[in-house]
Amino acid sequence: MQRKDAKLKIIPLGGLNEIGKNMTVIEYKNEIIIVDCGLSFPEDEMLGIDVVIPDISYLLKNRERVKAIVLTHGHEDHIGALPYVLKKVNVPIYGTKLTLGLVENKFKEHNMLSDVNMNIVKPGDIIKLGRFKVEFIKTSHSIPDAVSLAIDTPLGKIIHTGDFKIDYTPIDGDIMNLHRFAQLGSEGVLALLADSTNVERPGYTMSERTVGETFENIFKNVESRIIVATFASNVHRVQQIINAALTFNRKVAFSGRSMVNVANVAIELGYLNVPKDMIIDVSDLNKYPDNEIVVITTGSQGEPMSALSRMASSEHRKMEIQPGDKVIISATPIPGNEIKVSNVINLLFEKGADVIYESLADVHVSGHACQEELKLIHSLVKPKYFIPVHGEYRHLRQHASLAESLGMARDNIFVIDNGKVIELSNDSARIAGTVDSGNILVDGLGVGDVGNIVLRDRKHLSEDGLMVVVVTISKEDGKVIAGPDIISRGFVYVRESEDLIDGAKLVVREGLKKCESNNVKEWATLKSVIKDVLKGYLYQKTKRRPMILPIIMEV
Amino acid sequence: MQRKDAKLKIIPLGGLNEIGKNMTVIEYKNEIIIVDCGLSFPEDEMLGIDVVIPDISYLLKNRERVKAIVLTHGHEDHIGALPYVLKKVNVPIYGTKLTLGLVENKFKEHNMLSDVNMNIVKPGDIIKLGRFKVEFIKTSHSIPDAVSLAIDTPLGKIIHTGDFKIDYTPIDGDIMNLHRFAQLGSEGVLALLADSTNVERPGYTMSERTVGETFENIFKNVESRIIVATFASNVHRVQQIINAALTFNRKVAFSGRSMVNVANVAIELGYLNVPKDMIIDVSDLNKYPDNEIVVITTGSQGEPMSALSRMASSEHRKMEIQPGDKVIISATPIPGNEIKVSNVINLLFEKGADVIYESLADVHVSGHACQEELKLIHSLVKPKYFIPVHGEYRHLRQHASLAESLGMARDNIFVIDNGKVIELSNDSARIAGTVDSGNILVDGLGVGDVGNIVLRDRKHLSEDGLMVVVVTISKEDGKVIAGPDIISRGFVYVRESEDLIDGAKLVVREGLKKCESNNVKEWATLKSVIKDVLKGYLYQKTKRRPMILPIIMEV
Repeated sequence: MQRKDAKLKIIPLGGLNEIGKNMTVIEYKNEIIIVDCGLSFPEDEMLGIDVVIPDISYLLKNRERVKAIVLTHGHEDHIGALPYVLKKVNVPIYGTKLTLGLVENKFKEHNMLSDVNMNIVKPGDIIKLGRFKVEFIKTSHSIPDAVSLAIDTPLGKIIHTGDFKIDYTPIDGDIMNLHRFAQLGSEGVLALLADSTNVERPGYTMSERTVGETFENIFKNVESRIIVATFASNVHRVQQIINAALTFNRKVAFSGRSMVNVANVAIELGYLNVPKDMIIDVSDLNKYPDNEIVVITTGSQGEPMSALSRMASSEHRKMEIQPGDKVIISATPIPGNEIKVSNVINLLFEKGADVIYESLADVHVSGHACQEELKLIHSLVKPKYFIPVHGEYRHLRQHASLAESLGMARDNIFVIDNGKVIELSNDSARIAGTVDSGNILVDGLGVGDVGNIVLRDRKHLSEDGLMVVVVTISKEDGKVIAGPDIISRGFVYVRESEDLIDGAKLVVREGLKKCESNNVKEWATLKSVIKDVLKGYLYQKTKRRPMILPIIMEV
Repeated sequence: MQRKDAKLKIIPLGGLNEIGKNMTVIEYKNEIIIVDCGLSFPEDEMLGIDVVIPDISYLLKNRERVKAIVLTHGHEDHIGALPYVLKKVNVPIYGTKLTLGLVENKFKEHNMLSDVNMNIVKPGDIIKLGRFKVEFIKTSHSIPDAVSLAIDTPLGKIIHTGDFKIDYTPIDGDIMNLHRFAQLGSEGVLALLADSTNVERPGYTMSERTVGETFENIFKNVESRIIVATFASNVHRVQQIINAALTFNRKVAFSGRSMVNVANVAIELGYLNVPKDMIIDVSDLNKYPDNEIVVITTGSQGEPMSALSRMASSEHRKMEIQPGDKVIISATPIPGNEIKVSNVINLLFEKGADVIYESLADVHVSGHACQEELKLIHSLVKPKYFIPVHGEYRHLRQHASLAESLGMARDNIFVIDNGKVIELSNDSARIAGTVDSGNILVDGLGVGDVGNIVLRDRKHLSEDGLMVVVVTISKEDGKVIAGPDIISRGFVYVRESEDLIDGAKLVVREGLKKCESNNVKEWATLKSVIKDVLKGYLYQKTKRRPMILPIIMEV
């Protein structure tokens, strides 16, 4: 029996006003299901941070109500937070075969595989989770086995697209199930949550297949080794490289930890078709002539520790770029990685490689829908309410405009932030409060132990370094009996700055003398005097403001 | 009398394999002239650095031979190092009126205006500098008064394009002097040095005038305030904004220090035409209706301290973004600034502004020549030798390919690095050695005092913070009489990590005890024991590696 006033809630805990850490709560009465559980990579100012995961305080408070986590696909920004979240809220996970194959790898690394409950679904399946029924719908994306979700609730259907594009000629031959979107639209959809990543781009995203054609054209005319860098998870891209290699009688070597891992999972699960004798090891490259070699590697984002960067800077243990190598960077720099990618391209050219990248040939297509594709999905689904997801504020805003341009009422569109609660009945929707949300920073083993104070200190230290001043004073009379000793790091090159350090000691001594003659003995005051005189002195001499750490020892 | 074996040397000291700090030495016998004297902005890993200037050791060694510095235009990457270089090598400077107007501002800031010798030239002028004759040739660029240089030497002519594009409909009506390039080409050019920035882009760069048309179209339909962010030095862009404002009866306010500075110089020197009563102060905006206001501001690169960023984050003292404001970002993010620009766009949207940026409308054109323009210049100049300049290695390499595709012999093209000496006779050219070159880092008042060690420490501190351990030992018996005291910054939030700190003290105490029982008393050993035990303990507990600074005091 449905109470008259029972409401459906949609609460994004991540993925709004950001690219990454996608996670959405769907809640009805005492039941919660979660769509995706992603991480994001640290922003520039998050110094020293490894990854960022969503704040799940809301789930911890409602732990016993959470029924399951449902996954749309196997990218880090959709599955990467699972190990952290499941350690706190261990619920069953549902996802397609490849998605769970990649998830399984993660759990192995975190040594928790035996503690989790994973359930493989396939497109077309409908699973029952309490009062919810979740249907998995085949889509296209830059990783195989991606699905949209149609979530049937007592108040109506919600469609969550996940990340998607419309590829009429996908590599696996199995196109996005547009029929099902159309059918659901005819039956009536209460709310649509749709991917906003590419909403600023007009037109259509090209088919993945076009990249294969480029590969064939490049491979045809090359006698040297061919090295292709791409995203490990883009299994269809890897398949196309393998196909081109097959056509031109080349062996294939995988390079880079995640490339090897994903390729193994994809081969094992049947998502990557490659004749066994075609795969060779990177350390055996010199057993084959150059024109029989293709290396598929990580490093398309210029990551300094990746296989491609190490090849380019002669730091790879097993192979090095040689003059004439054809290197294809089959990817676009993710915003923020432009300089890193450019650095790698420069290094490759300097080694004598011939490098092909996006501005020179069509070696990459996006995995996200552009404007015309989004319009198609909106037009098929005809939702009552629309919540743009997966994007920065500018993307969400533009996606809202796109929906409006298709005739949707502005009041039925919700451009919201993480943590906002959208409360829906079958004929109304409103923002009804806020729950905790935000970034939890992971640094080494620490999850959430690095906060704003630590980051602020790291930033200060990174810009101007520090100066430590130690003074030993007597317990009896409070007089200085040793020091000031000064140590500095990241501020000036000490050996060439003796005068500066001597001067610093002098002003500290004078400051302390003044305290003595004024009979000031409180440590806090002494420390702040040391800080102040040093700060003034150093700024006057260098126009820099190192962190100053006064330490008083008492004996 | 020219000795038979006298050679002409071209030595780039900056601008090759990098974007920025352009500086080229031209040398014949005992005479040196320098083309441009720019700075570059710090790369990500140059933590805390303000700007980067070229290493001029070679000039310091040959100080008395340097005749002059000749400037192509007034961008920072061509004039920014002048104050630093002239303090060491004070020679006359030659440049066009606006270029020197901007240079003058710099000298004022550095309090050295009275010490320098500045000489205004105009396009068409030829100046004699020892055996060199330097001719200034009108070009187009994203700053007015840009020139190429034709340098007549005893062994032949060198053409240095400076930064340029070909604009057939420039805002000042005065197009690049293609006739002169053609004439020089007919007479014979020994070597061409040409801008490589846009060599990867096919086709032509659009005329600056097209941006003006976009402005008119946008202004026509807007009733709210209009705020345009662009580069301060792009005076023609600013002129077009003013023209559109005039057309639609709007006043203009300048915002941001460099925008105000450059506008003042440009108005004073006649490069910016704006009716006096049209200019208003930012603090007077509320005296005018919204539809009579245009604000021209800095901040098009998302710089966090810029006027636009401060408006967007409510930190501007005099104005704030209000809902409905039309904000035009009339610029492209310089590589590395993408995220910053995106952040500002998001903030602006969140404040309710309607933001127009490059992916939405043609609000920017580049100042650099694309492939077809470069081909034109190569074809007109027909140099014997070619040295691509102003670009990363990938750009220089592609520019070399472009020259080859036009029929130039590969042996006559020199893709080189900063510091390489190209030695030319009138019928030969070769790389003849290397001089010192590189980056001098400027941090506050320090020029060159921050080197690799300091940067490495800053990086370490930025990632994991530090832990200082102080121990006081007795002079008499070497026994610990106070401490260990521990202070940490940027590592963990200390108040929530008391156990960790207590544990750290414990392992240090144990380590020191072991030393004592082994009768180890050397400070160096004690320090390294403290470092080692702490490092191991902290890594095991946190998987982080803070910098550890052991300090021993003796009383």
